[in-house]
Amino acid sequence: METKVGWIGTGVMGHSMAMRLLKKNIPLVVHNRSESKTKELIKEGALWAESPCEVAKQTDVIFQMVGLPKDVEQCTLGEKGVLEGISEGKIFVDMTTSSPSLAQKIGEAFKAKKALTLDAPVSGGDIGAREGTLSIMVGGDEKAFQSLEKFWDILGKTVVYQGPYGAGQHTKMVNQILIATNMIGVCEGLLYAYRSGMDPWKVLESVESGAAASWSLSQLGRRVLDKNFEPGFYVEHFIKDMGLALDEAKKMNLSLPGLALAHQLYIALKAQGGGKKGTQALFLALSELSPSME
Amino acid sequence: METKVGWIGTGVMGHSMAMRLLKKNIPLVVHNRSESKTKELIKEGALWAESPCEVAKQTDVIFQMVGLPKDVEQCTLGEKGVLEGISEGKIFVDMTTSSPSLAQKIGEAFKAKKALTLDAPVSGGDIGAREGTLSIMVGGDEKAFQSLEKFWDILGKTVVYQGPYGAGQHTKMVNQILIATNMIGVCEGLLYAYRSGMDPWKVLESVESGAAASWSLSQLGRRVLDKNFEPGFYVEHFIKDMGLALDEAKKMNLSLPGLALAHQLYIALKAQGGGKKGTQALFLALSELSPSME
Repeated sequence: METKVGWIGTGVMGHSMAMRLLKKNIPLVVHNRSESKTKELIKEGALWAESPCEVAKQTDVIFQMVGLPKDVEQCTLGEKGVLEGISEGKIFVDMTTSSPSLAQKIGEAFKAKKALTLDAPVSGGDIGAREGTLSIMVGGDEKAFQSLEKFWDILGKTVVYQGPYGAGQHTKMVNQILIATNMIGVCEGLLYAYRSGMDPWKVLESVESGAAASWSLSQLGRRVLDKNFEPGFYVEHFIKDMGLALDEAKKMNLSLPGLALAHQLYIALKAQGGGKKGTQALFLALSELSPSME
Repeated sequence: METKVGWIGTGVMGHSMAMRLLKKNIPLVVHNRSESKTKELIKEGALWAESPCEVAKQTDVIFQMVGLPKDVEQCTLGEKGVLEGISEGKIFVDMTTSSPSLAQKIGEAFKAKKALTLDAPVSGGDIGAREGTLSIMVGGDEKAFQSLEKFWDILGKTVVYQGPYGAGQHTKMVNQILIATNMIGVCEGLLYAYRSGMDPWKVLESVESGAAASWSLSQLGRRVLDKNFEPGFYVEHFIKDMGLALDEAKKMNLSLPGLALAHQLYIALKAQGGGKKGTQALFLALSELSPSME
């Protein structure tokens, strides 16, 4: 009998990923806090379930992609959550970027019901979700990881098993630490280029293929020069992720001054009204620190 | 008659670049503060000159690659410097990473003698110098830039004319700003990976091809994981470059908190004895902030 698959959380990322599974003829049972966001998936053949618990009862493998760690906790361990409906041998995969500690807590709770869990946050944005080119960083039960190969192939390009419960989340924290601090450099570098009277496009040509090369410089730096601050990834979500990483680092007695600076600068950007802008809008917060003398 | 070419400064970078010109059958007149470092070049056919002034007298195009801005000032404007020996129509190219203001000062001084100057700092390290794959960022007289195409082809891969006197140096400042802040992220990310008990090589596999991708992560991050802190680029030279960029930024009323943090952390690393290590040794200074609890 075919594996029955559930999907909880159909926001920007979750919708695109669930749609990829449907288009590959994998039937889905779906749930989302606001039902309206599942309409397109239902039109493509997905079945609606009233709660995360119902999804877990009706399916064998349950994917989840929600917003904040508190949403993860609610949908997973709360009333009518996944845990209530789970049973022996079923696999629960939380793809939300959330705290490593919470992933461990969920892992233990599900183990008590002989169910398996994976924490599998992703990187690659909405484009990666639509095109199936995500990097998926997986922690939890290794056999469960292996048994889901078919789904990883549809959803991601770089899919790496990182270790026990929480290891996927820890890897995502590393990813966000790398991006956060580099974004300061990208924005400061471009701001210097502008203020020194250079042609920033020519400067980009000189620097983007050498030792200063980065994905953020070539992709998001270009958007800055185009004065395009639309969200690929929301500032307010990024602030959440940096906060999670700083909390985890603190528990490890680990001082991360670059990440702390990035966090503060992004909070300043949000305070200036930039919470719904893309992460490249850090350029605006840094400009604000040094208003032009004109 | 063939253009006569001079080369001043034969340290690690200057030596490799001068050698490339010799191997392409371009005769050179060379000078270096300590004569011994020109031995190999002399063996390949270069002629020795007693001072920068002498190099300028005997040649038409003079390249220079020395250490600090004060060395640039000494070799160029000081006693027996290039300016003393220069005359109408000759071209002086300073490839040292130095201050944009000094490049402007040199440009004006040479203009008074109807000589042309270019500031043309490079990025790409010793490997780039040996293999002729440098990024060369050029400011100064545009016609002089165009007339040297043959030399640019031998020395570099990405060679971009950026604008008037100092524009090459400004571009190099942008390059160093980008690298400095990103190095904090690379080292903090890898430190987090270690401390959270992950396999940092596996973590690298998950993060290095997505939105966190950078040259520094893939090249210097690997050296960190190999515990290789040997210099590709010296910490103490990097501190010099960051200081130059901060000075210029201050003149522009430009606040660069990420660069300032990187500068301070690298000063701490130097204080810990790391001045002659490679820039990836920032990992050690950050570890020192959070000594392992074991």
